[in-house]
Amino acid sequence: MGRSRQGSLVSFRPDIKVVDCTLRDGGLVNNFAFTDEFVKDLYLANIKAGVDYMEFGYKASAEIFNPANFGKWKFCKEQDIRSVVGDNKTDMKIAVMADVGRTDFKKDILNKKDSVIDLIRVATYINTIPAAIEMLEDAKKKGYETTVNIMAVSKVNDDDLDGGLELLGQSSVDAIYLVDSFGAFYPEQVERLSDKYLNVAAKYNKKVGIHAHNNQQLAFANTIEALTRGVSYLDATVSGMGRGAGNCYMELLLSFLRNPKYNKIAIMNFVEKHMQKLKDEGAVWGYDIPYLLTGTLNSHPSSAIQFIKEKRTDYAMFYQELIDNVL
Amino acid sequence: MGRSRQGSLVSFRPDIKVVDCTLRDGGLVNNFAFTDEFVKDLYLANIKAGVDYMEFGYKASAEIFNPANFGKWKFCKEQDIRSVVGDNKTDMKIAVMADVGRTDFKKDILNKKDSVIDLIRVATYINTIPAAIEMLEDAKKKGYETTVNIMAVSKVNDDDLDGGLELLGQSSVDAIYLVDSFGAFYPEQVERLSDKYLNVAAKYNKKVGIHAHNNQQLAFANTIEALTRGVSYLDATVSGMGRGAGNCYMELLLSFLRNPKYNKIAIMNFVEKHMQKLKDEGAVWGYDIPYLLTGTLNSHPSSAIQFIKEKRTDYAMFYQELIDNVL
Repeated sequence: MGRSRQGSLVSFRPDIKVVDCTLRDGGLVNNFAFTDEFVKDLYLANIKAGVDYMEFGYKASAEIFNPANFGKWKFCKEQDIRSVVGDNKTDMKIAVMADVGRTDFKKDILNKKDSVIDLIRVATYINTIPAAIEMLEDAKKKGYETTVNIMAVSKVNDDDLDGGLELLGQSSVDAIYLVDSFGAFYPEQVERLSDKYLNVAAKYNKKVGIHAHNNQQLAFANTIEALTRGVSYLDATVSGMGRGAGNCYMELLLSFLRNPKYNKIAIMNFVEKHMQKLKDEGAVWGYDIPYLLTGTLNSHPSSAIQFIKEKRTDYAMFYQELIDNVL
Repeated sequence: MGRSRQGSLVSFRPDIKVVDCTLRDGGLVNNFAFTDEFVKDLYLANIKAGVDYMEFGYKASAEIFNPANFGKWKFCKEQDIRSVVGDNKTDMKIAVMADVGRTDFKKDILNKKDSVIDLIRVATYINTIPAAIEMLEDAKKKGYETTVNIMAVSKVNDDDLDGGLELLGQSSVDAIYLVDSFGAFYPEQVERLSDKYLNVAAKYNKKVGIHAHNNQQLAFANTIEALTRGVSYLDATVSGMGRGAGNCYMELLLSFLRNPKYNKIAIMNFVEKHMQKLKDEGAVWGYDIPYLLTGTLNSHPSSAIQFIKEKRTDYAMFYQELIDNVL
């Protein structure tokens, strides 16, 4: 089915949902070691900015991950979220991410009536979609909104992706995310994939989301490309904070959106107070040549993160190492 | 006339010309104070990288600009270029920029037979196109290739732009550049404008170029958007060095292009040797919130450059100042 552009640069689409992932994807940068003040200020800034969902972190299994090694937002206990949001009597909804195989979802995800969380975001690889669906149905039965991220689709062939999308289409999930885990996609690939996801979503009355990475300085461009095709859940983080090259900048996204409820200045005030401080304290993320190289080679950013951590700058040698390991 | 995408992500288009503007647009960052070693290494790196044109700087009038206040690449004297390139017995061509009203072109632009320069790039505003055409015809008569940049088109209405493009179409210029001076354009605007320029170019058998700025982290995305529409002259700078938010990164552009003659690693080796050093010595450019704000307000970056120079971070107040002055 052919698709065309949705909306214009002047109007706005009421179906848009902006999702702040700063604590979750940004937490991968600093092991979730955010101060309570940072989290509280981000919560207040997101409300002022008109953000639709704020993702607080992961619901990771404390049996797999030792809580001594991570900040509390790796686990997102109910009382920790409530210590920030109370009963969250606001228009902004609360989200957490649950990884397939790394979450004790039956135990750790409470019934919605006992939780201030609104949205459970399940993250899966293509080969664990049946396990993801088990988690999604559990969350839906407990009363939550649900979305699913199919990670690393830049490595998935079209037949497998079509099969996975069909399975998810038949599930109770509310929205299916197109995820550019490796920052490998160009806008014209995002256009093609967005249309593929949107066609399945239209068939099953679901929404589509996008989660982009900035390896090629395309996270924002890819997000608005997806948006103009009809994708409606848009992930972003403050100053692009996220693993490796980071994500789509919330500042850029809110500047683009025309709905008057969005207020980029609220986020910029937060940036002024917190983000340079975070960098000065040692958190490192954002576009750099090693991420460009892993992105163009469609490869996990871990080797680039290590390269930067070691303060190496021998890009030519790094590229040869990557080719040896990847191709 | 409707247009469609040109080429695919796997093939390459032989009409593509990559233009390195590091010394020229980057010179606006540091008053053209590049060391001789930097310039020589950049020349050698560009040759290795397969860059098609290297722009050495401006042909500025020494009667308007005092040479004591600028590095030599503001003026690009013949002997200064030759001290780097000799007779330039390479496949890479040499370019300089000549601003309307700021160049003693009759005197300072020699006959081609006496110059190692290949391409004269004339920069004009919409209202000085007749003066630009005088310069373009002078350069063509002297034996040069010529291109023209219409600057600040994001502030030009469609009727005026159509008239200007027609005038340039009827001139002897080889290529007409779409220039996003303020980093104000989104990819879908670049698509529409590229098609407009390409339609005029097709009528008069000319080429189209793109020169983008990175205020909204869209310089690369806008460049490849234009490229996929059929634009063939592509400006970029090493690490995006250029006024304010800077330009399209050469590293990203060469990674995207599929022609095997392009070699991104040659540029990365140059980055390793020179670019961090330049930043450590005080050169400041690249995406930052103040440039995002001037970009979205379609305004000259000078106020953002000043804001950053003063080490201000009160973004909310800056935004109010901009609105007072711009809207």
